[in-house]
Amino acid sequence: MPTNNRYSDTDIAAVYRVIYERRDMRHFLSDPIEPEQLRRLLAAAHHAPSVGFMQPWRFVRIRCQALRKELHQLVEQERLLTAKALHEREDSFMKLKVEGILECAEVLVAALCGQREAHVFGRRTLPEMDLASLSCAIQNLWLAARAEGLGMGWVSMFAPEAVKTLLDMPTDSHPVAILCLGHVATFYDQPLLEQEAWASRQNLDDLIFENTWNTPPCS
Amino acid sequence: MPTNNRYSDTDIAAVYRVIYERRDMRHFLSDPIEPEQLRRLLAAAHHAPSVGFMQPWRFVRIRCQALRKELHQLVEQERLLTAKALHEREDSFMKLKVEGILECAEVLVAALCGQREAHVFGRRTLPEMDLASLSCAIQNLWLAARAEGLGMGWVSMFAPEAVKTLLDMPTDSHPVAILCLGHVATFYDQPLLEQEAWASRQNLDDLIFENTWNTPPCS
Repeated sequence: MPTNNRYSDTDIAAVYRVIYERRDMRHFLSDPIEPEQLRRLLAAAHHAPSVGFMQPWRFVRIRCQALRKELHQLVEQERLLTAKALHEREDSFMKLKVEGILECAEVLVAALCGQREAHVFGRRTLPEMDLASLSCAIQNLWLAARAEGLGMGWVSMFAPEAVKTLLDMPTDSHPVAILCLGHVATFYDQPLLEQEAWASRQNLDDLIFENTWNTPPCS
Repeated sequence: MPTNNRYSDTDIAAVYRVIYERRDMRHFLSDPIEPEQLRRLLAAAHHAPSVGFMQPWRFVRIRCQALRKELHQLVEQERLLTAKALHEREDSFMKLKVEGILECAEVLVAALCGQREAHVFGRRTLPEMDLASLSCAIQNLWLAARAEGLGMGWVSMFAPEAVKTLLDMPTDSHPVAILCLGHVATFYDQPLLEQEAWASRQNLDDLIFENTWNTPPCS
């Protein structure tokens, strides 16, 4: 079995560590992020896999405070609509902190570019693979940020059409994340929604099947 | 500025190294993967972020060789249909190696679970966030595999309904990836589609805007 491609034990441990210690953060300190550091994180995102090497990811850095406040208001509107849609869980949902848009050092809107229909490779039957690629890019950014000691939160509570209008985005683009990025006092020990007992981690054995759906592994 | 959350320089370097050295592999050796190693990779996937902590990811491990061959045939059918749809690029597309399903050690079908409409948190206006979560899980698996010296390829060239029928998947589930995983002789220096001149890496500066779409950063 070839072993020459394997990283050192300490490097492997660092990769697993960052995977396990990454958190969706909603509590931030206001300390700024250096431009070179932000650039490193965005370059890590840009080295994600993408279907047919289409690189559909775009990032809008929100530097204008008025825009940031407008984004926050859009999220607040959707938070209330989500609460209503959750019916009997409305009250417990409303107690959760779901974003840190006004506190974090940097807000980035991550979006799919326009004119994506030109990219057929790997997307003829699964056009949503563009979103899969962008999501891998965001995960790269998240992991790199955690290693550098920065927290990130992915906010998907907004009306995409309203964000497009606000940021003057073309009709065929699509915003999928308001990313809150910044220094934090401490990282949560567990995912916040697990800590707050909103949901529990599932048993890995229940998520793996063998050959056909719902068939547990035999070994 | 708080620095106590920052990893050591060597650990940070390991995280960036794996992000930059991960490749979408289509060439594999046949050496097997140990069960404990596969388990570590799937556990890394399971520690991805997920919208509202819904953990929508499911993995079907294909152990039956006949099933693997049927999956390969479905991909081959879609490869030919993709080639036709690419018109003037048909010939150059047909020269590319796009998958290693028959050669790799392990084939996993990654899918979204059924009954996802119950999960409203972060998905009321963006229901596709379940795919975003699964994609982050696949990226975790990919990075952990690379650190351990294993290659992975994400094949999205198949008709999802045909895969669902083949694997007896419920109508409300959705397969999004045939993952080829295994030992490799060497990792590509660059993404294969870049090496083969199918597409070029875009300039990062062209992908980052400031405040509004298509507005370049001012600093």
